[in-house]
This record gives sequence, structure tokens and C-alpha cells, in this order.
Amino acid sequence: MATSAGGARRGPRGGDADTRGDILRAAEQLFIEQGFARTSIRGIAGRAGVDPSLVRHYFDDKAQIFIEAMRPLSPEAIQAISATPGLPSQPGHRLAAIVFGVWERPEIRARLTTVLTTAMVEPEIGEKVRTLLATEVIGHFIELPDSERGAETVTVCFSALAGVVAMRHILKLEPLASAPFESLVATYGPVLEMHLQRGLVRPGE
Amino acid sequence: MATSAGGARRGPRGGDADTRGDILRAAEQLFIEQGFARTSIRGIAGRAGVDPSLVRHYFDDKAQIFIEAMRPLSPEAIQAISATPGLPSQPGHRLAAIVFGVWERPEIRARLTTVLTTAMVEPEIGEKVRTLLATEVIGHFIELPDSERGAETVTVCFSALAGVVAMRHILKLEPLASAPFESLVATYGPVLEMHLQRGLVRPGE
Repeated sequence: MATSAGGARRGPRGGDADTRGDILRAAEQLFIEQGFARTSIRGIAGRAGVDPSLVRHYFDDKAQIFIEAMRPLSPEAIQAISATPGLPSQPGHRLAAIVFGVWERPEIRARLTTVLTTAMVEPEIGEKVRTLLATEVIGHFIELPDSERGAETVTVCFSALAGVVAMRHILKLEPLASAPFESLVATYGPVLEMHLQRGLVRPGE
Repeated sequence: MATSAGGARRGPRGGDADTRGDILRAAEQLFIEQGFARTSIRGIAGRAGVDPSLVRHYFDDKAQIFIEAMRPLSPEAIQAISATPGLPSQPGHRLAAIVFGVWERPEIRARLTTVLTTAMVEPEIGEKVRTLLATEVIGHFIELPDSERGAETVTVCFSALAGVVAMRHILKLEPLASAPFESLVATYGPVLEMHLQRGLVRPGE
């Protein structure tokens, strides 16, 4: 490992206190700007101003850097959003307002877009994001019945939400792309109420 | 332009009758195997056994090759699918059965997956796919009221369908990934009936 003591902001540096954080911030910028495939460990090191060997010291591979740099929202951030005043009281409308609301914020949207699209094109990232969604993210948004049925319901809601944000913010399909936010909640709130009540339906039910 | 008369199957060839088709088939394979970013015109030429200059003779750029090689379904194919016997009669359930049914076919799924994911990560492909969807694909699946409201309804239905296929087939989020096909139609059919009736809802409606 190449180390050079001290913290010159430009050029290769050693492992000072926030080197790991600097690497993650540099990686986040590059992943958002260039995408996963076009971002290299060498490029991340260059942007962070450290030697590539130092990046490899902190992280196993590019996929691990991606997951740590792009982790969509902390549990605390999710809790804060869920406590926003003025949210609708019906659970499906509430879920729609929270999730669509997060995507209206440009700085979060850029990150979530990169996470969602990369998960879809890079199988190893897909696997990690799938685990993260199942274990950390989704449960924070909905009061879950603690059962297999609950997990199904969450996935069904998630599919509805993901389609809307993908079409509105990523593929930018009109007229959904420029529909007012209130229309999103009014259109998809009832769908989410239905999904929350019925979950994954078995034919004949 | 480098031309060499005749049609040796391996190595650079000239512009014989189906050279353009060979290039498109080679491109389709590579885009599906490697993704758009990692596929080069040189690589396509190599797989097709032609000189790269011949690829550039037939196509403006990689984006044009992508759109022509990956064009999801011909209008005839869509019409044939829509005429499949045994489809549900309610329009939303019918739409669910057709679209989800297409995605159950592995050979079509590989192509559609590449189109959807590439459209989401490559802005110039997104633009072309958006146009293609708006002008060619979506209208074939649904009897459209000929109005702005009709276009909105289509987009809303499309967002619902896209979320499900993305979560089931691309991100492979369980339990949706291994849910039986009949459950998909039973779960999302009623959602599509609702969307077909209401379209994009204005708050207060």
C-alpha cells in the first residue's frame, strides 16, 4: 500500500482521519456523473486525491464502494421524513406522499436514480440493493404485519411506487413527468390502499 | 469504406445482401450480453465478421444501431399477442395478462430488459425509447380515447406495468419474482381497471 503521511488536498495522500469519507464522497460524485460501469477505482482515487492502493485498502471492490457511497437514506432520515407534518392519514396515500416526496428533492433523486438504475443493469449491485431494500428500507415506510403476507404486501407496494418514479423521473415519460405532485398522490394513493389491503392476490380469492 | 467482395462467414466481408441484418443480429447479442456502455462498434463489427467501417456505412452511431437491433416488438407481433385466445375480457386484466405474458417469454424478456434498463441509464437511448413508446408501442395494447386524457391514462397504466416487470424480472425482488403468473393478473388487473377508468387524477376530483 502506498502511503504518504499528511493531508495535501491534491495529489496522493495517506490515511488521515476522513480519507475513507473522502473516497466515498468522490465515488458518489463519479457514480452519479458517469454511472457504475464507467467509474473505475483509479478514477475514484484520482477524484479523492489518494493513491488507488489506498482505496483498495479500505474497500474490497467497486461494488462495495458503490453500496456504501450510495446508501440511499439512513433510518434516521426515513424516520424524519415519515414525521413530516401535513401528510395524508390514509396509509396508502401517506406512503405515496412520502416516497414520491423524497423523489421530488433533486439531491436525493440523483442518488436514488443511480441506485435504482445500477441495480437493474449490474447483477452484483442488484443483489446487494435487493438485500438492502428487503432488510432496511421498505419496512421503515410501512407498518408491517409480521408475516410472510406482510413481506408480499411490501413488495407489491414497492413495485407500484418504483414504476411511477422510474417513468416520471428516469425515463421522463410525459404527461407523468410533468404532472403536479398532488396528482401523483391522488392517482396512486388509492392503488396503494388496495395493495395494502389485499397484498399479493391468489386467483379465486 | 473497406469492402471485400463475397461472403466468408468469418473475417471482414463486403456488403452482401444481409450484411445489415447480420450487423443488427450481432449487435443485439452483444447489447444483451454486455450492455450498451460496454459494447463498441468495433465489437459489433467483430461479432458480425465485417469491417467496422461497414458498420458506420449502414448506421449513424451506436444509439441508432441499438434502437434498430432492439426494437421490442413489431406491430404484427403485438397484434398477434392481443388476439391470443383465453385472455380475460375486462380491459385492465386483459392488459395485465398481455404485458406480463410477454415478459414471461425468456427470449423476449432478455431484449425488453436491455431496452428498459438502457433507456434508464443512457439519456440518448431514453429519448428514442420514449418516442417509440409514445408513438408505436403503447397504443397497440389499449383502445385509446383519442384525447389528451387518453395519453395520460396510457402513461399511468404503463407506470404500473413497468414497476411490476422491473421488480419481478430485473431487480428480482421476492416474493414478486417467483409469484405465479395468475397472481400477477389477479393483483394488478384491478389496479389497471382503476387506472383505465380514472387516468391521471386531479386532486379534488
